Formats: sequence, C-alpha cells, structure tokens
Amino acid sequence: MVELVGKLNLDTIRAAYQRIRPYIHRTPVLTNSWLNDASRTSLFFKCENFQKVGAFKARGATNAVFALDDEIAQRGVATHSSGNHGAAVARAAKLRGIAAHIVMPSNSAKVKIRAVESYGARVVFCEPTEESREIKCAEVITQTGATLIHSFENEHVIAGQGTAAMELLEDIADLDVIMCPIGGGGLLSGTAIASKSMRPQIKVISVEPENADDAARSFRAGHRLVTEKKFTIADGLRTNIGEPNFAIVQQHVDDIVTVSEEAIVSAMRTIWETMKILIEPSAAVPYAAIQESKIDIGGKSVGIILTGGNVDLDSLPW
Amino acid sequence: MVELVGKLNLDTIRAAYQRIRPYIHRTPVLTNSWLNDASRTSLFFKCENFQKVGAFKARGATNAVFALDDEIAQRGVATHSSGNHGAAVARAAKLRGIAAHIVMPSNSAKVKIRAVESYGARVVFCEPTEESREIKCAEVITQTGATLIHSFENEHVIAGQGTAAMELLEDIADLDVIMCPIGGGGLLSGTAIASKSMRPQIKVISVEPENADDAARSFRAGHRLVTEKKFTIADGLRTNIGEPNFAIVQQHVDDIVTVSEEAIVSAMRTIWETMKILIEPSAAVPYAAIQESKIDIGGKSVGIILTGGNVDLDSLPW
Repeated sequence: MVELVGKLNLDTIRAAYQRIRPYIHRTPVLTNSWLNDASRTSLFFKCENFQKVGAFKARGATNAVFALDDEIAQRGVATHSSGNHGAAVARAAKLRGIAAHIVMPSNSAKVKIRAVESYGARVVFCEPTEESREIKCAEVITQTGATLIHSFENEHVIAGQGTAAMELLEDIADLDVIMCPIGGGGLLSGTAIASKSMRPQIKVISVEPENADDAARSFRAGHRLVTEKKFTIADGLRTNIGEPNFAIVQQHVDDIVTVSEEAIVSAMRTIWETMKILIEPSAAVPYAAIQESKIDIGGKSVGIILTGGNVDLDSLPW
Repeated sequence: MVELVGKLNLDTIRAAYQRIRPYIHRTPVLTNSWLNDASRTSLFFKCENFQKVGAFKARGATNAVFALDDEIAQRGVATHSSGNHGAAVARAAKLRGIAAHIVMPSNSAKVKIRAVESYGARVVFCEPTEESREIKCAEVITQTGATLIHSFENEHVIAGQGTAAMELLEDIADLDVIMCPIGGGGLLSGTAIASKSMRPQIKVISVEPENADDAARSFRAGHRLVTEKKFTIADGLRTNIGEPNFAIVQQHVDDIVTVSEEAIVSAMRTIWETMKILIEPSAAVPYAAIQESKIDIGGKSVGIILTGGNVDLDSLPW
C-alpha cells in the first residue's frame, strides 16, 4: 500500500483539480477581524463546510470515482462509511452514472442514511464495528465486482483532498502555517503534499482530539500505533491513521497537537457566533488548538481548513 | 418627516456607499443548488449576516453617524434599540471617535448589552415599553446635546440600508424580484429606491410575520395603521412601519405578504442546514414566503437580503 505514496505530488493534485472542478465548489476563504484580534494572528478559513455534500470529502471521492477506467467503473463502486465519505461516493457515482454500494453501520443517523439514498446509492447495513464494516464491504465487492473507494488509503482520494489546500494557497499565497484535523489522514496527506510543494517554508500543523490521539502518539513514536479510543464529539476523527497516510505525514508534517473535548465545543461555538457559519465538531479542532494556545503562531498568517458543516441541529453540544 | 422622502434617490445611496465603504463589508452573494431545485427559482442570498455587527444595520448607522457635521458630531449620538441598531450606532460612534448613548430596555439580553458596551458606548436603561424608550432617549438628548440616530425614520439610515440592494444588483444585474423583510421599514425603503432606480422592471416584494402585520395591512388599506402585535420570534420585525418609510413603500413596493411563525422557524432551519450559515429569525422571513408558496416566482431570479445572523445559541427555536 505504501507504494502509492511515491505517486503523489503536486502534479497529481493538479490533475485531480482538473478532473473534479466541474463537480465541486471552489469554496470561499473567509476571515474574521474578531478572531484575528483574539488570536493575534491572521486567520484564513477555507470553507469546506460550503462544499458539495457539506464537506471536503466530495473532493477525494469525486476524483477517485472519475479516475476509474470506463470498464472498471461500469462494475460500480463500494465503500464503508458512517459519515460524509459515503455521501460523497454516492454523489460521485450518480454523477458518473454508475452503481454505488455504501456499507453503513445499522445505528447510523437517519439523516445520513437518507443523504446517501438521495443520491440513488444502495445502502448495505452492517454491525457498528470496524471489523463488520470491512467484512460486509468485502462481501459486497465479491458479489458485485465493484471497486473499493477507501476513504483515506487511496491515492486518488488523497490527491483530491489536497485540492483544498492547493486552492487556499492559490488564493492566499503567503501563509506561514496551514492547519487541518487528522482522522484517517486523507486530508492531512493531501494538504501536506500540496502545501510543501507550493510553499516549501510553510509549516503544516495538524490537530487531533485528545480522546483519539493515535496520530499524535504515532508521530512522536516514529511508528504507527493503533490506540484505544475514548469517545470524541469530533466523530470524523475517530479513525486510526492509515498506513500510506502515516508515511506521508512523517515526511511532510511539522507537528500534531491534541485538544480536549471542552476546547472543541468551545471553538465550534466561537466560530458559529463570530463567523455566522455552521461547522461540525471535527472542523473546529484546529481552531481549538489556537484558542487553547497549544501552538505558537503569534503574528503569523495561518490557513485553516474548515472540513465540514454537517451537524444535527437537534443535538447541539451546548 | 415626510420631506426626507424627496431627498432619497440612487445618488444619495451611492453617496452613502462611498461614505461607509471603509467601515463595512461588501458581503458575499451565496447560492444553493438544493434551495434552487426546491423552489424552482434561482435564489441569490445577500449575506448581511456576515456584515459588521452581524447585521445590515451597520450600513445605515455608519452612514448617519459619518454624515453629521463635525460640530454636531462632537456632541455625540443617541438612539434607543434593543437589538442590532444599538450596536451599529455604538460601533460607528467609536469609529468616528464620538460619544454614543444607547437606550436599552432593562430586560435586554446580556449578550446585546455587552455588545454595545464593547464599543465603548454608554448604555442607559429604560422600562421595556416603546414609550419609556422614547422618553428616556429624549431625556438623554436634552442632557447631552447628542443627535438622535433613529433606526429607520432617518434619511441617512435609509440611504445606508439601500447600499445592500445596490451591491446585490451590481453583482447580479438581472434579478426579476428582490425580497427583504419589513419591521420599521428602513431596509425596505432603501432597498426599494435602490432597486427600482437601478432596474425599473424589478418587483420589490416584502414579507412580514403574520403576528406583526401592520405594514401588510397598511399597504392594503392605503394608509398607515398601527396594529396590536402578537409575539413573533422575528424580534427585529416587531416595530410599526415608520411614516416616511410607508410613503416610500407605497410608491415603490409591489407587494407585502405575511408568513406564520412555523414557517419562519422552518425556513430558518432549512437555510442553516442547506447553506451552513447562521441567520436570525427575522432574516428567514422572506424565504419562509417562498417555502410556503406565498408568492409566485417560479423560474425567476430572486435576490433575498439575509438581514442578520445574531442568534442566541442557548435558545434555538427547535
């Protein structure tokens, strides 16, 4: 799997951008003077909460689905996801006119199941465990001949996710720091490759919930650790970092810091109230590190990828 | 008071734009394919929820404060407001370096009091009645020599509010319809003058809560009626329409329709969920009329001014 690392560079990210641009938004970059004053920095927020399907995941999934050869594509695509990646694959498959099989835990939120079904995809339920998801997805692939679109261990997914940082650096060329959260590491891998290629002196800093800190621990240990997870409200970040993703992170990322659950909720609320935008808990994680002074960025220009805006308005964390 | 009507035209709105542009945001115009499909229209949302102080009120207040002669300005400004206009006047006065006296009901939300105080203004409390507000404000003016900046019966406030529609029509020139809510009528007056001047064939349609429908009743009656109000969640729209504002509305507005409280909450939630932006209940009122099919706009290009984004996240209406 690690061989895909060598295939990823700014050219593959630019190719991804050309492939997906008819199907995704070039999202705006917002600033807020109150947040700048509070953090004594210049913050540039790349608003992937305004992206199609409400999250950056539309980029990678669309790139992976459209990168398939026609013959392979005709057999359909499959993935397992309880979140935004499933909807993103379903939408991309609909745009390409092929079948999508999305394996979802039986306890998935109804709104998420409906989102996937609204794109015409077939939902296949499994037990709510990582093992059950993978087994069920493998079964579906055996039965249908569909191609797996893994949510982060896939070169085209990583290249697609990297287009967000590419756009951000095209719009704001002189960033000192770029930040995004880390779950499986698809976004962080793509962000790191795009950023270090376009601006070698940039610092790439990722942030992870304390309660799901396998990437931060692995980064410090110098090898990939699979850790026990506690609950985190940042549900997009519960996954362990992927193998190729970790190799890219080791090569290109400057630091991974962690934040508390309280800090995540506080950062989410601060961004809602000051910027008047909805972001999901996972998207608040980088700003939580700034608000908690976990990183030293005074006076710097800092790009932050706001990863998504899909929240359940009936169960807000305050 | 009606003589101010004759002074208002596109030139005064353009002058307002030049006067306030160093101090306000040129807010973005957002679109959403899901909402377009659902309404079978092309909707263009002018995002004044992203404006300074979180509402379009920054435009009119800033114009009125900066339009004062130096000598008069030095004596300070005063207004009565429980909402966004008070914060907007406080901010404008701070920018001009003059005193502001903001009369607020004693039961105002703490967050609103703090917002006014954060701009260095003096908060003067009154009883929570319209009469008490006006008496207290008159007292403050007698004591200090400050100039009243009325929130809608003021030519410079109206001209300033008109800059939102002017910007929207500069960005999207071929709108068939423009919509905004109506409270006192400052925004609607400015919107109507700007819109009909720049694009005579445009329809100007305003929307009001059923529970505070004095403007709709007045519009149909052909003369200004002051009606009993029931509670509406759209707290920015509880005011009766002003006298000069009504004269402008009679001349330039094509229709005023009303919507239920349920429709306002539903529209607010729909916009939060699909557009991933925070808007306050008053800002949801125009889209509520579209969602409830209160107006016939199928196939049309429709501009909607989203008036503000200041909401209390601890007491959401769902």
